[in-house]
Amino acid sequence: MMPIDLRSDTVTTPTEKMRDAIRDAAVGDDVYGEDPTINRLEALAAERVGKEAALFVTSGTQGNQVAVLAHTQRGDEVILEEHSHIVEYEVAGLSTIAGVQPRTIKGVNGQMPASDIVSAIREDDIHSPKTALICLENTHGDSGGRILPLRYMGEVYDISRQYQVPIHLDGARLFNAAVGLGVDPKEITQYVNTVQFCLSKGLSAPMGSILAGPTSFIERARKWRKMLGGGMRQAGIAGAAGIVALEEMVGRLEDDHVHAKNLAEGLAHIEGINIDAEGVETNMIMFSIEGLEMDSDHFIEKLKERGVLANSISQYRIRFVTHRKIANEDIDKVIEIVKIISAEAKVSL
Amino acid sequence: MMPIDLRSDTVTTPTEKMRDAIRDAAVGDDVYGEDPTINRLEALAAERVGKEAALFVTSGTQGNQVAVLAHTQRGDEVILEEHSHIVEYEVAGLSTIAGVQPRTIKGVNGQMPASDIVSAIREDDIHSPKTALICLENTHGDSGGRILPLRYMGEVYDISRQYQVPIHLDGARLFNAAVGLGVDPKEITQYVNTVQFCLSKGLSAPMGSILAGPTSFIERARKWRKMLGGGMRQAGIAGAAGIVALEEMVGRLEDDHVHAKNLAEGLAHIEGINIDAEGVETNMIMFSIEGLEMDSDHFIEKLKERGVLANSISQYRIRFVTHRKIANEDIDKVIEIVKIISAEAKVSL
Amino acid sequence: MMPIDLRSDTVTTPTEKMRDAIRDAAVGDDVYGEDPTINRLEALAAERVGKEAALFVTSGTQGNQVAVLAHTQRGDEVILEEHSHIVEYEVAGLSTIAGVQPRTIKGVNGQMPASDIVSAIREDDIHSPKTALICLENTHGDSGGRILPLRYMGEVYDISRQYQVPIHLDGARLFNAAVGLGVDPKEITQYVNTVQFCLSKGLSAPMGSILAGPTSFIERARKWRKMLGGGMRQAGIAGAAGIVALEEMVGRLEDDHVHAKNLAEGLAHIEGINIDAEGVETNMIMFSIEGLEMDSDHFIEKLKERGVLANSISQYRIRFVTHRKIANEDIDKVIEIVKIISAEAKVSL
Amino acid sequence: MMPIDLRSDTVTTPTEKMRDAIRDAAVGDDVYGEDPTINRLEALAAERVGKEAALFVTSGTQGNQVAVLAHTQRGDEVILEEHSHIVEYEVAGLSTIAGVQPRTIKGVNGQMPASDIVSAIREDDIHSPKTALICLENTHGDSGGRILPLRYMGEVYDISRQYQVPIHLDGARLFNAAVGLGVDPKEITQYVNTVQFCLSKGLSAPMGSILAGPTSFIERARKWRKMLGGGMRQAGIAGAAGIVALEEMVGRLEDDHVHAKNLAEGLAHIEGINIDAEGVETNMIMFSIEGLEMDSDHFIEKLKERGVLANSISQYRIRFVTHRKIANEDIDKVIEIVKIISAEAKVSL
Repeated sequence: MMPIDLRSDTVTTPTEKMRDAIRDAAVGDDVYGEDPTINRLEALAAERVGKEAALFVTSGTQGNQVAVLAHTQRGDEVILEEHSHIVEYEVAGLSTIAGVQPRTIKGVNGQMPASDIVSAIREDDIHSPKTALICLENTHGDSGGRILPLRYMGEVYDISRQYQVPIHLDGARLFNAAVGLGVDPKEITQYVNTVQFCLSKGLSAPMGSILAGPTSFIERARKWRKMLGGGMRQAGIAGAAGIVALEEMVGRLEDDHVHAKNLAEGLAHIEGINIDAEGVETNMIMFSIEGLEMDSDHFIEKLKERGVLANSISQYRIRFVTHRKIANEDIDKVIEIVKIISAEAKVSL
Repeated sequence: MMPIDLRSDTVTTPTEKMRDAIRDAAVGDDVYGEDPTINRLEALAAERVGKEAALFVTSGTQGNQVAVLAHTQRGDEVILEEHSHIVEYEVAGLSTIAGVQPRTIKGVNGQMPASDIVSAIREDDIHSPKTALICLENTHGDSGGRILPLRYMGEVYDISRQYQVPIHLDGARLFNAAVGLGVDPKEITQYVNTVQFCLSKGLSAPMGSILAGPTSFIERARKWRKMLGGGMRQAGIAGAAGIVALEEMVGRLEDDHVHAKNLAEGLAHIEGINIDAEGVETNMIMFSIEGLEMDSDHFIEKLKERGVLANSISQYRIRFVTHRKIANEDIDKVIEIVKIISAEAKVSL
Repeated sequence: MMPIDLRSDTVTTPTEKMRDAIRDAAVGDDVYGEDPTINRLEALAAERVGKEAALFVTSGTQGNQVAVLAHTQRGDEVILEEHSHIVEYEVAGLSTIAGVQPRTIKGVNGQMPASDIVSAIREDDIHSPKTALICLENTHGDSGGRILPLRYMGEVYDISRQYQVPIHLDGARLFNAAVGLGVDPKEITQYVNTVQFCLSKGLSAPMGSILAGPTSFIERARKWRKMLGGGMRQAGIAGAAGIVALEEMVGRLEDDHVHAKNLAEGLAHIEGINIDAEGVETNMIMFSIEGLEMDSDHFIEKLKERGVLANSISQYRIRFVTHRKIANEDIDKVIEIVKIISAEAKVSL
Repeated sequence: MMPIDLRSDTVTTPTEKMRDAIRDAAVGDDVYGEDPTINRLEALAAERVGKEAALFVTSGTQGNQVAVLAHTQRGDEVILEEHSHIVEYEVAGLSTIAGVQPRTIKGVNGQMPASDIVSAIREDDIHSPKTALICLENTHGDSGGRILPLRYMGEVYDISRQYQVPIHLDGARLFNAAVGLGVDPKEITQYVNTVQFCLSKGLSAPMGSILAGPTSFIERARKWRKMLGGGMRQAGIAGAAGIVALEEMVGRLEDDHVHAKNLAEGLAHIEGINIDAEGVETNMIMFSIEGLEMDSDHFIEKLKERGVLANSISQYRIRFVTHRKIANEDIDKVIEIVKIISAEAKVSL
């Protein structure tokens, strides 16, 4: 029996339609700009987020790294939320590849206080790197898939205009944010200069992300992508699935959000589980098991024995992520299983 | 009518069998190590080149960059042939990403004189970076696909052992070298610590390369690949074609070599064309048109008008590359077309 | 009339004795290791902080950067206090030169909570840089010259041993910390692997700092210093003053501390000035003028008109630093001048 | 007895006049731009080489590295002579700090063939770094202090204008070149955008170099110098000697050149010594001892036993450098000593 895999929405496999599209994709050498599928995907993607141009990259990490490379010069500084993906999960690439210094700000639900952003922007001084970029992340992973409100995006945008510091959005789960807000993604991306979003994850393409922005930016980005080894030949094989993802998979993210909400509400009734079900806005939930006096590794193990896979976030925090492979009945099953584990834990206390 | 595309073997598109394999590939999340197709590909690839382990990367450039990152530390120096791919075509990644300095040596047919390699290895001194790596390229692109002889590989290997400097082989066209020499690729790779080879190019996979070497090296490489954004999710979609490439496409490289040889010999008889047909060892030929008093850009244009695509290497040098999409009759056609262009050029002199 | 310069203790000029020592210094080529004055200074400095070896560097910034280079490899992460000098005032060198990512933690009086340090240390994971270094700063400049207590140093040291992450101390004002605590500097430096301290600043040498640590570390550091261009020839000319600084100037730091305390207590009685006089532990004081409804730039201007120089820290915060050129009577004068400015401000409210 | 030290002109110690100037230098905090001696030195230096502005740096290496940082962006390429100081002796700083790739060209007497420079300038292409800088070195150390002729400088300058690639001159021994040519240094520096020259070496200041160029360039350079830790406080202590160096020491370089010439001619008559005395243009001579069947290390040892210090360049090549501490009679003595060593070597053959 297949386990119920709540580790991440990255485990989604391509749909049959994607596989067929890949099978039959028209391809050419994309380093020469001759892959028709990639050209179609990049045009489609740019249009969806209201930007002039787009670039297919092999991962969200590559999209973010290329964006930083194209926005900054070595010796610059970049403002980011303290627990943003770029800082936490991209192997220090920002500093190692681009030679820029992250300036982190503690956020609430992924939102860096506007006044802190202003304070962090450097004045011209011989001791100070130039503040060259502000990065936002929407949805924000480490706070549990929280959505940055449009009002907040606008506020940061205003700062960005006033201080002439561009904004890059790590929108790995941009479409979850748009669906969660019930708006067109362009409503969100209007507030940023450039955006990266993933075709994999909830949209289920097997691989790849999009970086979008002004044409001149994308031209620079294309060269930096080449340096990172992201220039591929018949890339349309991967890109074909991305077109299906954009055309057919966005609508279904709503299901993942409903599943996450239901799961959260179910867990909220279990003694020893501490969860803010209100705060579940997209396809992630995070909860504490400190009340069970069991640590995460142990809890994960117990889940696994019963056919549920999950990731631990810290000593007492667990993350569940819903996605296309998680059905209604899985939600109920998981709630039951957590109930059993919790009850056992209580007994042994 | 499709042009005869002699620009590069990178323009090869996947075979029907590859497309089917991709369509039906078993996949999983490769960042978790759970993609069965990638796991199979990496095991197969490692075995083919006689190394402990292998890593699927998105391009030859990525494979080389990751290799340099995993072999060196910032501030080190790397010995490379003056016109090697890493120096010429990888956007200075060596210095920008890895922070290491290339030490280039002029080679003959891609062979750096052994004594020059020895001279280039630095002694320990406060002014000197540490010599951390020797890179070879086989076949060597900029000399026209020349094969490094086994004897030469062994000679560099001996230096490498004596001075304790490891060797990385940019074997983007390793299988062309092996087929050209009529040996198992392991005969070549026995002389290097690590090797990168392309699944695209002559082997016709749509994308991707392999980096192979000792297990501990590949572990480090996997992390550096992640930093470059080369860690993908259901990467088996791309990897499935790689398995077909390794299992079924190596043998056919011989055809490309025969075609290149025939083409070279045909061109050698045309007045105004200067070519060393003897030196054509694999699937590339390079020739000078200086005798036609026509520059490369103009010549390329004339070819294009007649349905032949090619790249210029310098003001009077042209490169033709044969591959799966080039048939016997194409070779004759190209010779005819060059004859016509040359004749016209002679008239206008 | 000379202004009363409270901007920084970096404005101290060399003493007559230093000038004589420089005049008569025995010198040689330090790149060859033949400068007797530098050799004497480095031995003396190492002994003073209880380390095996020491290296003369041209500035505190160079000492810190060289330390990071010698402790880490590219792609690593370094834990630092959010407003530490390395992060705030070293032009992003950490990321640009060393290619490492700062991981900042908000401190209280320069003390990062021990539990936050532990949380920040990364586990081995493909997404995570290696935590390669913890940096402390004692005294901590941006909190107003606060001393890290010995107990705190010991606590971080224990973490460092447990997790096997070395500690570098930015001790630009190490001797102020030692004098403030009434202990030998070795009592402080016993808790760190390596330390940088300035010979300029309160100790009044015209230039230069010391980096001290294990012999093998200093050997690596010497080479990194060379790369930064810090290898100088007859460096004893600069080093001679450093010997005087170490032998004769440490004792007098006590005066600067008394002056700062008196100044703080004087200011504490002025309406509109908000200062924590208790928190003045060494030769710096910081205070808020928000109560005057005057911003820092304006306040600084008013001071300047009356012959007092100071730096603003933020919109309403001012920093005063005492040093050898500030006498008892200057303290009284400054208090009077601030009284006058404050009174004028009150009137205009 | 003091040895006759022919290892390098870096071993020169400051003159009495320099020591007095240092003793009495007016100083201030140069990071605030308030050191009058440094300000005077920088103005004087800029004027001497006909540039708008100048910056005092702690070494030639720092001057060159800062120049590269201020001329380029990461990912660029720099054209340099194969055995230039920047490539050979600056610890790979170019790649590690600035993240740029050296593109080396084999020169003759330090002169890269003009046509090779043109070929090395990259066209705009997705595979290619941008050619951002050409570096020249005059005098050229590794060819034995050879002077780049003015005609050659002009030729490279023309290329530089045509292709819009600026030129930086590593003029560590610029004044030797000017004296050798019998021209004002401005005759040389008119052909370059920026220049670094050393105040130490033949000019005998204890430390420091000058980087000169356009005002906007020097402003950027000042910040990069800060990042490298080259921003010093009362730097006038070092700078005072630099003023004496510029005002009084240039003229005497002629003596060093005469000494070198005499030494070369003396050695030319010794059997087993192979030297191109014609090629001795400044204060360096290089010769081969291969005819003695003795290797360099052994020869250096023999010299040392007789009170002469020198450096070996390779297995059979020795370098002698003349400078202020080498007098007429030392030249005769050295010739005698080499004669004796050579005679002994011949006997033992």
